[in-house]
Amino acid sequence: MNDIDLSLITSPADIRKMNLTELTQLAAEMRGALIEKLSAHGGHVGPNLGMVEAVIALHYVFDTPKDKIVFDVSHQTYPHKMLTGRMKAFTDAAHYDDVTGYTNPAESDYDLFSLGHTSSAVALAAGIAKARDLKSGNENVITVIGDGSLSGGVAFEGLDYGATLGTNFIVIVNDNQMSIAENHGGIYADLRLLRNTNGTAEPNLFRSMGYDYHYVNYGNDLASLIKMFRSVKDINHPVVIHLNTMKGMGLPVAEAHKEEYHFSGPFDPKTGAPVKNTNPSPEFYSDLFAKGMLRRMHENKNVVTITAGTPGVLGFDKARRNEAGDRFIDVGIAEQAAVDLASGLAKGGMRPVVGFVSSFLQRAYDQFSQDIALNHQPATFVIFYGSMFGMNDETHLGFFDIALLSNIPDLLYLAPTCKEEFEAMLDWAVSQNKHATVIRIPGSVAVSNPKIKLLEDYSTPHYEIVRQGTEVALIGAGMMFGIMAQASDLLAEQGIKATLINPRNLSELDTTTLDTLKKYKAVITAEDGIIDGGYGQKVASYLGEAPVKVINLGLPKEFLNRYSYSELQSRCRLTPQQIAQIAIQLTK
Amino acid sequence: MNDIDLSLITSPADIRKMNLTELTQLAAEMRGALIEKLSAHGGHVGPNLGMVEAVIALHYVFDTPKDKIVFDVSHQTYPHKMLTGRMKAFTDAAHYDDVTGYTNPAESDYDLFSLGHTSSAVALAAGIAKARDLKSGNENVITVIGDGSLSGGVAFEGLDYGATLGTNFIVIVNDNQMSIAENHGGIYADLRLLRNTNGTAEPNLFRSMGYDYHYVNYGNDLASLIKMFRSVKDINHPVVIHLNTMKGMGLPVAEAHKEEYHFSGPFDPKTGAPVKNTNPSPEFYSDLFAKGMLRRMHENKNVVTITAGTPGVLGFDKARRNEAGDRFIDVGIAEQAAVDLASGLAKGGMRPVVGFVSSFLQRAYDQFSQDIALNHQPATFVIFYGSMFGMNDETHLGFFDIALLSNIPDLLYLAPTCKEEFEAMLDWAVSQNKHATVIRIPGSVAVSNPKIKLLEDYSTPHYEIVRQGTEVALIGAGMMFGIMAQASDLLAEQGIKATLINPRNLSELDTTTLDTLKKYKAVITAEDGIIDGGYGQKVASYLGEAPVKVINLGLPKEFLNRYSYSELQSRCRLTPQQIAQIAIQLTK
Repeated sequence: MNDIDLSLITSPADIRKMNLTELTQLAAEMRGALIEKLSAHGGHVGPNLGMVEAVIALHYVFDTPKDKIVFDVSHQTYPHKMLTGRMKAFTDAAHYDDVTGYTNPAESDYDLFSLGHTSSAVALAAGIAKARDLKSGNENVITVIGDGSLSGGVAFEGLDYGATLGTNFIVIVNDNQMSIAENHGGIYADLRLLRNTNGTAEPNLFRSMGYDYHYVNYGNDLASLIKMFRSVKDINHPVVIHLNTMKGMGLPVAEAHKEEYHFSGPFDPKTGAPVKNTNPSPEFYSDLFAKGMLRRMHENKNVVTITAGTPGVLGFDKARRNEAGDRFIDVGIAEQAAVDLASGLAKGGMRPVVGFVSSFLQRAYDQFSQDIALNHQPATFVIFYGSMFGMNDETHLGFFDIALLSNIPDLLYLAPTCKEEFEAMLDWAVSQNKHATVIRIPGSVAVSNPKIKLLEDYSTPHYEIVRQGTEVALIGAGMMFGIMAQASDLLAEQGIKATLINPRNLSELDTTTLDTLKKYKAVITAEDGIIDGGYGQKVASYLGEAPVKVINLGLPKEFLNRYSYSELQSRCRLTPQQIAQIAIQLTK
Repeated sequence: MNDIDLSLITSPADIRKMNLTELTQLAAEMRGALIEKLSAHGGHVGPNLGMVEAVIALHYVFDTPKDKIVFDVSHQTYPHKMLTGRMKAFTDAAHYDDVTGYTNPAESDYDLFSLGHTSSAVALAAGIAKARDLKSGNENVITVIGDGSLSGGVAFEGLDYGATLGTNFIVIVNDNQMSIAENHGGIYADLRLLRNTNGTAEPNLFRSMGYDYHYVNYGNDLASLIKMFRSVKDINHPVVIHLNTMKGMGLPVAEAHKEEYHFSGPFDPKTGAPVKNTNPSPEFYSDLFAKGMLRRMHENKNVVTITAGTPGVLGFDKARRNEAGDRFIDVGIAEQAAVDLASGLAKGGMRPVVGFVSSFLQRAYDQFSQDIALNHQPATFVIFYGSMFGMNDETHLGFFDIALLSNIPDLLYLAPTCKEEFEAMLDWAVSQNKHATVIRIPGSVAVSNPKIKLLEDYSTPHYEIVRQGTEVALIGAGMMFGIMAQASDLLAEQGIKATLINPRNLSELDTTTLDTLKKYKAVITAEDGIIDGGYGQKVASYLGEAPVKVINLGLPKEFLNRYSYSELQSRCRLTPQQIAQIAIQLTK
C-alpha cells in the first residue's frame, strides 16, 4: 500500500479520486497525524478520532461545499478541516494554531457557522434546508450530531421542525455511546436497543418524530459509510442515519478512557500519560468544590449536586460520583432541565447545588428567571470558568454571566474573592431556605486569603471595606479584587490612601457604603465581565447625582477569539499599574 | 339529578365522596360557571373548558395535596382552583379577580409553582419526584402537559430525565390537537397516529423515551379518566397517560374556533360574539406588523416571517398565514429553534423576521448570542409586549428584554418611538445583510408621529435631537419618548428649555451626542424596562467622569404581579409631571 501524501490534499476533490484502499490509507494517516498533534498540543481527542472515517465518507460522497454540512458543537471537525484546505494545521507543528478548534466561516467556506455549544446544529441546518427549498435549490443539507448532544432541548426542537420540511434533510447521529462523560436520559436506552438490534427495533425515537431511519453498525468502516451515504444522497425527505462509532478510535488509551480523553492537554502518544508539568500542581477550584460538596452531602442528607453533562468541570470524577451516589445527578447536556430539576428538588425540601460552565448556563436564562428566582427556590448555582482568564474561544467566553444573571430579580449573585470566601458563601447558601443564589468561582486556580472577613449571612448586600482611605475608592469584584488590592498597594507607595472594597454581592448595591463614597473624588469599579449591563454600571447609576467621578473597568462587549490574556488585560486598563494611574489622575 | 352546590366544595375531599352521577353533574356546573365567568371577564377559554373532567378525576383519584400535581403553563388550572378552596373566584363576580390566571403557591398549597411559560413542568415535577425518592417518600408525582407544550425543548429535557427516575412519575399528556394555533412539528404526526390507533401504534414517542404508556380516547369522559388514573395510582415507574380531549368543550363557538378562543376577552356566552367596545377600534402594532410583513414578503421573495407558536400575537390570523404561504413559518412552541432557524435561513440568503413575545424570547438567549450575533446573521427580531404597559402577570412581564438582549455583542437593539419609525427600522433591517437586529415595538396601540426624522441606515448609533435645549437633557427610549416629550413641554411652560433626545438604539451609545451633554447640569434617561442592566446605566457609566448629573428612570428589578399601570408609573417617577419636577430640581 502506498503512502498518501497528506500535503497534497487541499480540498475534498482530491479524495473523490481515490479508491477504497487509498481512502483507508488516508484515514490511517489522518488518524496518525491527529494523534501526533493532539499528543503534542492537546485538544478534543475522542470526538475527532472517532469521526475520521465518517468525515472522509461525507466529503467523498457529497458534493461539498455545494452540499452543506453543519457539525454540531463542531469539536469533532479536525478531520473536516484536514480535508478542506487546512491540512497543514494538523501536520506541521509550526501551524498547529492556525485554525480554531471549531468550525469557523472566517477560515473556510466549508464551515457554515462558528459553533461551540451543543445541540443547535439540527435547527441551524433546518434553516439552511428551508432556505434551499424556498429558493428551489437542490443541494443536500446534512447535519452531524453526537448522541450526547441529543439530550439538549434545542436538538429536539430542531429535529421536530426538521421532520416537517418534507424535503432533503440528512441527520447523521454519531453514536459513540458517550457524552463528555456517560450519557443520561431515557433516550439512551432506545439508542442502545437500536444498536443491539441493528437498527430494527421499535420504538424508535427518530421514526416517532417523523424521520426515515437507517443504521450503520460499523460507523468506522469506510465501505459501510460510503454505501449508506450514497444511498441517501439526494433523498427527497428527512432521514436519520444512525452511526455506531468508536470514540477515541485508534488510540487505545482514549478508547479505554473515553471521559478522560474527550478533551485532553498534551500526553504521551504511546502510553497516553499526561505530559507532566514540572511545577507543583496548584490547587484548583474544581477540586475544592468537589471535596467541599462531598463534605456537605455527608453532613446534610438533603444536599444534592447537579451537573448538565460536565461532571469533570465540577471536579466529580468517577470515584467521587460513586461516593456521592444518587445525590450526584447528571441530567446530561440539558441545562434547562438541570435548573428546573433544582427548582423541583428545592420545592421538595432538598438543597440542590448546580455547577455550570459560565458560557453554557446561557441556555437556561428563562429557567433561572421563572422557575428559580420568581419561585424563590433555595437552589444554589456555582459558576465555573466565569472569567476573562477562563476559556478564550469566542464560543466559550466566560464574561457574560454577570450581565446575564445579576439583573434577574430575587436572584443573589455572589462573587467571592478567594477560596475561604467561596467556601463560606457556599456553606451559607446550602444552609438557608429562602434565597436563590449564584456563586461565581473566582478563576480556576484557588487563591487563599486567610484574612478575609467572612459573614454568617450573605443574603443582604454588605460590602467589606478592606482598607479605609479617603479620596478614591477601589471596588474589586470577585477575581478583580486581588488586582485592585495590588493597585491600592501601588497607590500607598505614592502616598495615596485608597479605600479598598470587596463588594461580595453583584446583584444588589450596599447603598449605605456607597453613600459614604459620594464625597470622594473618584470611585473605580473593576469586574471580570463585560461592563455593559454589569456591576459597575449599577454603581455609576446609583452615584449619578453625586459629584464623585465613577470609572467602570471591565471587558468590552465583544466576541473576542483566542485572545491573549495579558493583552486583553492591558487593553481594558485592568493591570494594577493602570488602575493606580487612573486613580492618581482622578485625584489630582 | 340534583344540583350540586358549588359553594360547598372547599377542597378535593368534598368531591371524593361523590358518585359518578354527582361528579358528572359537578363537571356540568363547573363548566357552566366557567363559561359565565369567562364570558364576563375573559381569560383562557379553550384550555380550561377542555380540562374540567380530567382535573376532577385527578383530584378524585389522587390524594392531593399529598400527591403532587404540576400543571404545565398552568393556564388550564381554573377547574383546579375551583376544587381547591377558590370556588368563589369562579362563581361570584365580585371575587373574579381574587385569583391569578396561573397556579400560585401564595394562593394555595395545592399550587406548587408560579408558572406561566410552557414546557417546564415535566422537569420541575421530576425534581419533586427525585426529592421524594431521596427522602423515601411514597406520594404520587403527576405532571399535566398539553400537546402544544411538548414541542418546547425543556419539555423534552424533562421527559428524558424523568424517564430515568425508575420510580412513580405520572405524565398526563393533554392532547387537544392544538397549540395556541395549530401544532407544528414531527411529533404531532405520531400523536395523531396514536389517537387513530387507540394508542397501539408504533413508533411511540413516549415509549421511545422509556415511558410506559396508556391512551384514553375519551379524555372528557369521567368514568374513563377515573378508571385510568386509578390504574396508575402508586405505579412504580414512569408512565405517560395520553388523553384525547376537546379544547373548548361545552362552548360550541370555542369548540369550533379553537385558536380564537384559546384566550379571549369578554364575549356573549350564547353566540360567542366578542363584547363590542364602543370606542372606535385603535390601530394595533400587531396588525401593522402583519400588513407590513405581507408587503415586504410580496416585494422581496427572500423575506420570511417566523413565529414560535404565537401567530396571533404577530397579527397573522389564518387568512394572513394562508396569504404568506410557505414564507410564514410557525415552528411551534420552540423559541430556541425559531432563532436558530432564522440563523440558518439568513445563512442561506433569506431575510428572516422573527416575532416574539418579550417574556418568551427569554428561552432563546443563548441562540441570540451564539447563533445569531456571534455569527453576524442578518436576521431580524421584533419584540411584542415589551413594555410596562403590556402583560402584567408576574410570569409574563415585558420589561426584562432590554437588559437581556442589549448587552449581547454585535446585536443591534433598536427602540422605535412610533409607527413610522418602527416601519422604517424594519424596512432597513430586512434590506441589509450585515447586522443582526432586534426591534422593540413601542406598546400595543400604534402611535403616530409624522414629524419623526427617519434614517436610511440604523446600523450605527445616531441619536435624534428632537429639541435643542441647554442645561438639561431628556433621553426617552422607545415608548418613553412620548412621555419625555410631554415632560419637555411642561418644562417649556416653566421657561426651561430641555434638550429632547430619541436615542433610537439601546445597545450602543452615540458618544458624539453624549459628549455634548457633559457640560449640562443634568441628563435624565427613561426606558420602558428595568434600570439594572438597561440603557440608562450605559449612559450613566459613560458620563461617570463628567460633572453632569445623571438620573436613570425605569422599572425596579422586581417580579411585579398584576400591578396597576398608573401606580407603577408614578412609583417609578415616570409621569411627565414627575420627570419635569426632577429636571427642575436638578437645574436649580
